[in-house]
Amino acid sequence: MVMKATAELQVIPVGAGVSVRAEITRVTELLRDRDFIVETHASGTNIEGDLDAILDALRTIHVTLHAEGTVRLLSYLKLETRTDREPTLAGKRI
Amino acid sequence: MVMKATAELQVIPVGAGVSVRAEITRVTELLRDRDFIVETHASGTNIEGDLDAILDALRTIHVTLHAEGTVRLLSYLKLETRTDREPTLAGKRI
Amino acid sequence: MVMKATAELQVIPVGAGVSVRAEITRVTELLRDRDFIVETHASGTNIEGDLDAILDALRTIHVTLHAEGTVRLLSYLKLETRTDREPTLAGKRI
Amino acid sequence: MVMKATAELQVIPVGAGVSVRAEITRVTELLRDRDFIVETHASGTNIEGDLDAILDALRTIHVTLHAEGTVRLLSYLKLETRTDREPTLAGKRI
Repeated sequence: MVMKATAELQVIPVGAGVSVRAEITRVTELLRDRDFIVETHASGTNIEGDLDAILDALRTIHVTLHAEGTVRLLSYLKLETRTDREPTLAGKRI
Repeated sequence: MVMKATAELQVIPVGAGVSVRAEITRVTELLRDRDFIVETHASGTNIEGDLDAILDALRTIHVTLHAEGTVRLLSYLKLETRTDREPTLAGKRI
Repeated sequence: MVMKATAELQVIPVGAGVSVRAEITRVTELLRDRDFIVETHASGTNIEGDLDAILDALRTIHVTLHAEGTVRLLSYLKLETRTDREPTLAGKRI
Repeated sequence: MVMKATAELQVIPVGAGVSVRAEITRVTELLRDRDFIVETHASGTNIEGDLDAILDALRTIHVTLHAEGTVRLLSYLKLETRTDREPTLAGKRI
């Protein structure tokens, strides 16, 4: 069974310097590689896609950034699923 | 001293029904009443303004929504300040 | 490769009533079923375990609670990994 | 009118090194200076107290840590209020 989800992901490298732009750009690239709707904003990236693929992307982001040299990573994930209708980013906008 | 900040606020009424659109719209109105830069997105509202005013707005939102009938409220606030340069929403976009 | 992680998970059913105790208890049960160190507290559950297993548990929680009748679910996950030493809950306490 | 609240606060200094223990300890001290119930755990600090005092403490933490040398600060606040009964940390435990 495929379960659709919407999410917001913010990834913070700790101890990587005051600017974290390089790491955030890399996170965005890794999300855009997937079959997601991706909407970046000032506090994270909103994602629409399959629940399994979103969780797998989060795993890949941690593994990849560590492999590329980041020592410590914090991720803040807001994840939403619902069964009354398909969750979409478009449906959550005010 | 005035300290500038950027923030993301997501307010969730608990027990108010599966749709929370009315409450979220009200939160956005209360933020737009202030001297903030406000950017709504699918997972919350990004805010740029004075730290004191942002915290006061969060207080007003809880007091107002309770006065208008919401029984239980959860807020998720991401708050950022920095001293090397003025924090702005524009500066945080990828 | 096994990557260890620490996490905090808070799951909120939306529209399930003002009390969400039954759902939160169920989430805790599903986490305790796993090979994790689990520490519940007033704002969520802290978890120490393998990254893959934590993400799989999050998936199972959403699928299970929906199957048991919850219509809309929000999860807030804080996830941490590091390569300089093994991340543990014990090492994060003040 | 005094409104009681419960909260969880996690403060992350960005660019302060891989270890952030000194800053986290300082945050805990600043919270213990107040008339709060304070419960530290591996992913933050849970707080019970007056809404206004909690928000004022958050302001003081940002101002104080910047004055003591931290360049960039991210705070993650979960804030809860309810009108059906007094919110307490004890009442939120599973």
